[in-house]
Amino acid sequence: MKHTRGGHHVVIVGGGFGGLEASRGLKGAAVDVTVVDRYNHHLFQPLLYQVATAVLSPGDISSPIRRVLRSKNTTVLLAEAQSIDLERGVVVCDGGDIPYDTLVLATGATHSYFGHPEWARFAPGLKTVDDAREIRERVLLAFEAAERESDPERQREWLTFVIIGAGPTGVELAGALAYMTRHSLPKDFRRIDTSQARILLLEGLPRVLSVYPEDLSERAREDLEKLGVEVRTGALVTGMDEEGVTVGDTRIQARTLLWGAGVAASPLARSLGVPLDKAGRVKVEPTLTIPGHDNVFVIGDLASLVQDGKPVPGVAPAAMQMGKHVARNIRRQLAGKPLEAFRYHDRGTFAVIGRGSAVGLLYNKYRLKGRPAWMLWLGIHITFLIGFRNKVAVMLDWAYTYFTKKRDVRLITGLHANRLPPIHSDTLPGVTPERVGEAEHEPAHLH
Amino acid sequence: MKHTRGGHHVVIVGGGFGGLEASRGLKGAAVDVTVVDRYNHHLFQPLLYQVATAVLSPGDISSPIRRVLRSKNTTVLLAEAQSIDLERGVVVCDGGDIPYDTLVLATGATHSYFGHPEWARFAPGLKTVDDAREIRERVLLAFEAAERESDPERQREWLTFVIIGAGPTGVELAGALAYMTRHSLPKDFRRIDTSQARILLLEGLPRVLSVYPEDLSERAREDLEKLGVEVRTGALVTGMDEEGVTVGDTRIQARTLLWGAGVAASPLARSLGVPLDKAGRVKVEPTLTIPGHDNVFVIGDLASLVQDGKPVPGVAPAAMQMGKHVARNIRRQLAGKPLEAFRYHDRGTFAVIGRGSAVGLLYNKYRLKGRPAWMLWLGIHITFLIGFRNKVAVMLDWAYTYFTKKRDVRLITGLHANRLPPIHSDTLPGVTPERVGEAEHEPAHLH
Repeated sequence: MKHTRGGHHVVIVGGGFGGLEASRGLKGAAVDVTVVDRYNHHLFQPLLYQVATAVLSPGDISSPIRRVLRSKNTTVLLAEAQSIDLERGVVVCDGGDIPYDTLVLATGATHSYFGHPEWARFAPGLKTVDDAREIRERVLLAFEAAERESDPERQREWLTFVIIGAGPTGVELAGALAYMTRHSLPKDFRRIDTSQARILLLEGLPRVLSVYPEDLSERAREDLEKLGVEVRTGALVTGMDEEGVTVGDTRIQARTLLWGAGVAASPLARSLGVPLDKAGRVKVEPTLTIPGHDNVFVIGDLASLVQDGKPVPGVAPAAMQMGKHVARNIRRQLAGKPLEAFRYHDRGTFAVIGRGSAVGLLYNKYRLKGRPAWMLWLGIHITFLIGFRNKVAVMLDWAYTYFTKKRDVRLITGLHANRLPPIHSDTLPGVTPERVGEAEHEPAHLH
Repeated sequence: MKHTRGGHHVVIVGGGFGGLEASRGLKGAAVDVTVVDRYNHHLFQPLLYQVATAVLSPGDISSPIRRVLRSKNTTVLLAEAQSIDLERGVVVCDGGDIPYDTLVLATGATHSYFGHPEWARFAPGLKTVDDAREIRERVLLAFEAAERESDPERQREWLTFVIIGAGPTGVELAGALAYMTRHSLPKDFRRIDTSQARILLLEGLPRVLSVYPEDLSERAREDLEKLGVEVRTGALVTGMDEEGVTVGDTRIQARTLLWGAGVAASPLARSLGVPLDKAGRVKVEPTLTIPGHDNVFVIGDLASLVQDGKPVPGVAPAAMQMGKHVARNIRRQLAGKPLEAFRYHDRGTFAVIGRGSAVGLLYNKYRLKGRPAWMLWLGIHITFLIGFRNKVAVMLDWAYTYFTKKRDVRLITGLHANRLPPIHSDTLPGVTPERVGEAEHEPAHLH
């Protein structure tokens, strides 16, 4: 095959942690790299819950992929990959095909509604900037609605927040919401006491953060309860609608439901025609290639790999390590060397419960709790944030929040007043209930 | 009239500069204040063009109205005012009426399309956070489209930006766009040279910034042209569509049109049934009341007031001065004193052309140009920004932009890949034109 403008073409689909590291690892290599993503920005997803809870701006945790990947051999293309055609060796995108010599698939995963896709509109999950804005808007609107609401029962419904799934995302959302209602918002409302808001965290399994050791789960639960979160484990959600959720036989009235459960791989995996696991992830070879195609790599949350009897977790460090490994393997292939097997090094994972509180497991061995865990989490995340500006802005936002206990990016940008309850005159100041409807009276003048 | 829970009820509609100052001025007064706004945040509109051009985040220039107005006698309500019923003395909102004893209308203005409302979808204006995000997305998508486009003619259309109206907003948008294309973006693209982008600024009047003295207009034009902006004055737009704009008999092909012209007062003004000016603004008495109703005040961009033969301009300082004056007048009324006439003190206005370049007119007398004007503008705007966090974050964003010449909040959050041109294989690296459609070939392997 003849190449007139350059040589070997590596196409990387997905500009998340895995795709970015794969691309960086190919800097200066004798290949042309094209990175395809349907968004123009890399998102620092571990902090997305802080956008959803009005602590950070989307711009604080995202960087343009073009700016991050400025290597001369790298082209970035805003395009949505629709399927992979292994026969023809092309990525089928909206608007055209992209032929590859080597393909790296790193399109990640989204949440799974366990066979109930209709739940998505009642309980949004948290994967993209738009998801985070949607959650932020729903949460902030709920307080506005409660402030307008005249019926105490409905007011309680507006002040009830249910988070489904107590993995890291669910725990972090619940903790941040509890903190917001207890510390940031109370002084801003006149008719409601936001610190009385109910935050329910539902988990189908017997404990929160079930991938952590039992004592850390227990500590996380205690810390959540101290913050005011009601934790219910062994609680399987069987139904939901706009006004609440059903757990077994129990109905919980709540106007804001958030989804932090389930993993479903990007649907792109199906087009490969290779074996997938239950969550739709591609069962990769130890070299991270797919069976029968040593020029097609799958990495990050899209890859399913068992190591020492345990699945490699769908976390950012694993995706980054896979990305680096794939870049090394591609360089080996170019040099005529055989592929090497991937090994995941679990340096540690954290889950944040609230301000000054987290749990962490280092090297799958050392356990951290409370403030030390949180401090280390903070340092690590600031260090990893891509781009100088972002680091400084995020540090400032955090420092400000920490010292003033005020949360700030409280933006509702759409026009949603019509989604709020009626305005009852007896909820307004300076007006007696009798005053309303006095159409026959003259307008009140001062003199 | 009996008031059981509090006394005199002041309703302020609009949480912009005017409404906020009116509310602040009533802090501690023997009145209950209700501030009604359809958004939950106060927006620092003079910097909105920096959100539209990816320099600042929306959160940097907005503060929750609830947080800004925490006075004990003040209630904030998220609601959309639909009309004023002077007869009954109520503000008619979505979901209910709000009765007032004293009313302050401060709902501002939007852009006017000069009798062509259908132009709105081709050339968005800049008034809200959503407007700024829409413009940011269109601008960023245009570069992505140009990068994907294979036809040179269409590529030029994607790289042509037309700003209609050379008032402060149009000038600021044009300058910021030119700066972005010349300094921030060039290294991020492979197939296009963003510094070759055409930025056209069209103005129907004979000069840019026509409210400024002639020499400042001239200087602004020179500075814009130095930045690479093509300025066309006396250029009346007679038509537009998705692919360009018509100026007199001349057609300009351009895929991104932005609107910076015209003022139309909030439609709420019409429901008052009092005389309006051509732009729909309420012709207020010198006391800022409306004829026949000394308990109804209109301020800010919604008010039309002539002083010393000149209209009071629709700028933030005028709105703030009016807000303060109304608060004083309401206090006078409560004390049984007569209303006082408002006087606008023009301390100065600025228009920014680009990094280190602005024009300013102080006390309607002293002229500032270039870097000194820009420095003063910068200092004044940082000082005025509401909220400590915002000040620091904005300063940092600015400092970062200033020293690195990189713009950073380049977010396209929606899925828009399908709005981009087809992917042509001959635009991709490492692939010969012949390669595409080789379906009969085996996929390319490395060994």
